[in-house]
Amino acid sequence: MTDRGESRKITLKELAAMTGGRVCGDENIVLSNVAPVDKALPGELTFLSGAKNYAAHLESAKTTRAAALIAPEDAPELPLPSLRLKNPYMGLVKALQFFFPEDKPDYLIHPAAFVSEDADVAKDAIIGPMAVVEAGAVVGSGARICAQAFVGRGAHVGDNTLVHPGARILHGCEVGANCIIHANAVIGSDGFGFTLDNGVHVKVPQVGNVVVEDNVEIGACVTIDRATMETTRIGEGSKIDNMVHIAHNVQIGKKCIIVAQVGISGSTILEDYVTLAGQVGTVGHVKVGKGTTVAARGVVTGDVEPGSFVSGFPIKPHSEERKILAALRKLPDLLKKVRDLEKQLETKE
Amino acid sequence: MTDRGESRKITLKELAAMTGGRVCGDENIVLSNVAPVDKALPGELTFLSGAKNYAAHLESAKTTRAAALIAPEDAPELPLPSLRLKNPYMGLVKALQFFFPEDKPDYLIHPAAFVSEDADVAKDAIIGPMAVVEAGAVVGSGARICAQAFVGRGAHVGDNTLVHPGARILHGCEVGANCIIHANAVIGSDGFGFTLDNGVHVKVPQVGNVVVEDNVEIGACVTIDRATMETTRIGEGSKIDNMVHIAHNVQIGKKCIIVAQVGISGSTILEDYVTLAGQVGTVGHVKVGKGTTVAARGVVTGDVEPGSFVSGFPIKPHSEERKILAALRKLPDLLKKVRDLEKQLETKE
Amino acid sequence: MTDRGESRKITLKELAAMTGGRVCGDENIVLSNVAPVDKALPGELTFLSGAKNYAAHLESAKTTRAAALIAPEDAPELPLPSLRLKNPYMGLVKALQFFFPEDKPDYLIHPAAFVSEDADVAKDAIIGPMAVVEAGAVVGSGARICAQAFVGRGAHVGDNTLVHPGARILHGCEVGANCIIHANAVIGSDGFGFTLDNGVHVKVPQVGNVVVEDNVEIGACVTIDRATMETTRIGEGSKIDNMVHIAHNVQIGKKCIIVAQVGISGSTILEDYVTLAGQVGTVGHVKVGKGTTVAARGVVTGDVEPGSFVSGFPIKPHSEERKILAALRKLPDLLKKVRDLEKQLETKE
Repeated sequence: MTDRGESRKITLKELAAMTGGRVCGDENIVLSNVAPVDKALPGELTFLSGAKNYAAHLESAKTTRAAALIAPEDAPELPLPSLRLKNPYMGLVKALQFFFPEDKPDYLIHPAAFVSEDADVAKDAIIGPMAVVEAGAVVGSGARICAQAFVGRGAHVGDNTLVHPGARILHGCEVGANCIIHANAVIGSDGFGFTLDNGVHVKVPQVGNVVVEDNVEIGACVTIDRATMETTRIGEGSKIDNMVHIAHNVQIGKKCIIVAQVGISGSTILEDYVTLAGQVGTVGHVKVGKGTTVAARGVVTGDVEPGSFVSGFPIKPHSEERKILAALRKLPDLLKKVRDLEKQLETKE
Repeated sequence: MTDRGESRKITLKELAAMTGGRVCGDENIVLSNVAPVDKALPGELTFLSGAKNYAAHLESAKTTRAAALIAPEDAPELPLPSLRLKNPYMGLVKALQFFFPEDKPDYLIHPAAFVSEDADVAKDAIIGPMAVVEAGAVVGSGARICAQAFVGRGAHVGDNTLVHPGARILHGCEVGANCIIHANAVIGSDGFGFTLDNGVHVKVPQVGNVVVEDNVEIGACVTIDRATMETTRIGEGSKIDNMVHIAHNVQIGKKCIIVAQVGISGSTILEDYVTLAGQVGTVGHVKVGKGTTVAARGVVTGDVEPGSFVSGFPIKPHSEERKILAALRKLPDLLKKVRDLEKQLETKE
Repeated sequence: MTDRGESRKITLKELAAMTGGRVCGDENIVLSNVAPVDKALPGELTFLSGAKNYAAHLESAKTTRAAALIAPEDAPELPLPSLRLKNPYMGLVKALQFFFPEDKPDYLIHPAAFVSEDADVAKDAIIGPMAVVEAGAVVGSGARICAQAFVGRGAHVGDNTLVHPGARILHGCEVGANCIIHANAVIGSDGFGFTLDNGVHVKVPQVGNVVVEDNVEIGACVTIDRATMETTRIGEGSKIDNMVHIAHNVQIGKKCIIVAQVGISGSTILEDYVTLAGQVGTVGHVKVGKGTTVAARGVVTGDVEPGSFVSGFPIKPHSEERKILAALRKLPDLLKKVRDLEKQLETKE
């Protein structure tokens, strides 16, 4: 684990006040760290998630060296003080935020950064060494542009947004407030647009931009292409994992989850609360309805109704895809059976 | 959309002169911008492509606020002046180039760049802040190495080539003229070559290079490995989308189109005019014949005849793959049918 | 090929001494370069691998202009002096190392680098222009941090490790000795962890790190996420190709081979000597047993026994998958056959 700097301490009561939960047992117990149930040391906090392996977790909780536990509201009685929460992960979130506060460097604009005189950088923004902020760019209050990151001509970075090392916000693109852009992500590369003219692929200039709304997280080495004209949009609160490719003119709704290595083709629309699992692909110009989940590796080949759970290539209802995959294992045997049937019928004739 | 700087104006007649098309209606109409048919404002130009949704486009054209239209040669009569072109996209290209001229910075070698004294940089080349041009590198006339980009020892960047922020042209690699290398692309990483010796994977030094011929575009976060010895080659006029991986010793022909997230294994040869759609993979040491298209997600498992249209894993003629995919949806039902047939035959015996 | 700097010369006898092989023919022949069998010039060394196309290679060896040859121990008699080795690739490795020695720059800490006063950089380490080494970072003896690379706060880079341009070793992460981290790779991006709270995806702080053990090679544009708590680990001697995504809390064993564009989901364990071929995916929380190979494009959907050879989605024994793929091509025909059988039976009734 990374260093936690100075050691911080909190009581279970104080943590309960932060999270709204209910304490069972000694609420004044003092906690100095949070760690997994099998790794926590005396004096530390641990947690019991409601997730998979719950039974095994519960067993571990009985033997943990931890001093206290975050647990689901309906967990059984436990041999150590606990903070009960409807969503215990929220307790873990608050504990991690408390014990591992964000590191702040001792500079605002680092002397080895380049910030254009014509950029508009908030007084409390942080610009790291070798970062570049070009003319006309705007960097909001509390924002941090880490070492070697890039904010291009006329690009906007909203308040409290964190741009990790080597990320590129290219010219004219806009990133909202409270976003996190991970290392080496690229926002605003050219869309892939050509027209074949006398056997030569002529580039269609890509003069639009990318707008990333508030509270979005964008993974390492993600690429989001600018629109040909107008805007490629990532909706409020959406979270995008590493190495996702988003083509020009794509419209991603609010609070979508896009897992690693997904590829979304041009002009595709994801409505709100869509989940694309790992390595999914979509063709271009399709619409995926609100709340839909596409299982890993699926290929979206047409419009999808809201609330669907689909998988496969081409995608179909997940239950149907599962039946097909199960049936496939019987296919070689089926070939033999049909051959046998044919022989039997021949014999009968 | 990105800023267009000063407002530019053009008449339909002037645009026709640039593109060779025929004007229907008032050729002296003055145009101040180009925008999609449903977004264009009075005084602006719009376009009617020959592409999909042509009928819907045509309907929109009747109600657009635009002042003029680029349209296919054979489009019906329209209620506003139009420029008729065999390939209307070429009209759009010229209009976008006119209204959105390339931004030029107010420096040549930026004071915050590092350019080796032993590099050969053309007098009119532009080198952005935090860019690095190492000893022995050559940067051609009119070329632009953007902020934080890298041109390694002995690497060559041709005339008028644009290297976006964070792209790396590693030592000894050569990029031709009029190329575009997008942000965070890597040209010349080591090929993935090891030999197992007493249970240890020993690295085979990768001492070759990458040659990118003229007029090539390479997407964001693309990786092209250098050859073990000799050269990995990207042929003239080829266009490579984001996040494509090209392994060592691959030979890509002229005017190929490689869509996002494709992976091409070592020593594979693509002849001219090959198209690999999104997320395609190839095994190593195969040859894909001229003019072949591999549909999205296909896996090239062997040589492919010129002019093929293939898909699936392993690839097969696209028409065959489509039949298989259609048949698959009937497979669970087929299992039942065969079980029924078996029972019927048993009963008869 | 890249420049070889000054011309170097070696006799076959000297090369044999480096590699432990046996010389057939004139051991005093002087060699000035190594090149492929059909490209080698007079005075140069070439090689005959034991790999595919051996017969064709053998034929070429009879007409090569090369002065000497590296060959498998059991190769037939050849018309030119040869160095015989059990693993001829090891001879090639030594020859390439000899003829193409690593380039060393003429600086240690480049004046255009930024190295924190609070970083611990070995006296003989090399830090390139625009590289950043933050406070608390440690860079070992003989290590090289190339231009524009990043070593974050408290990160460690081991002895003789090479970090290519634009690679990011983020805060608190540790890279062992003799590693190679390729351009634009990201080590230590945040894991993709959220908890849904009242319809909002709340970020679970990712406070763990990544540990890369000794002798590991990590490809260009690879992303390795830090653990939520604790450590994401890449075992000793493992080799990772370009554009591989490794999620938080993954444990990769020793001497694994991960080919390009693989995605490994969270908390998955690969035991030692596992090979994942290109574009493989894994779900999370599964264990892949020692020595297992997953063929290209496979999706690991559950635990895999040690020593397996698996493929497909979901993975199954490779021999089974091949039978299914072969059977699939007969599926459309099978549908017809079953329809015919049904008709025949109906007729009989």
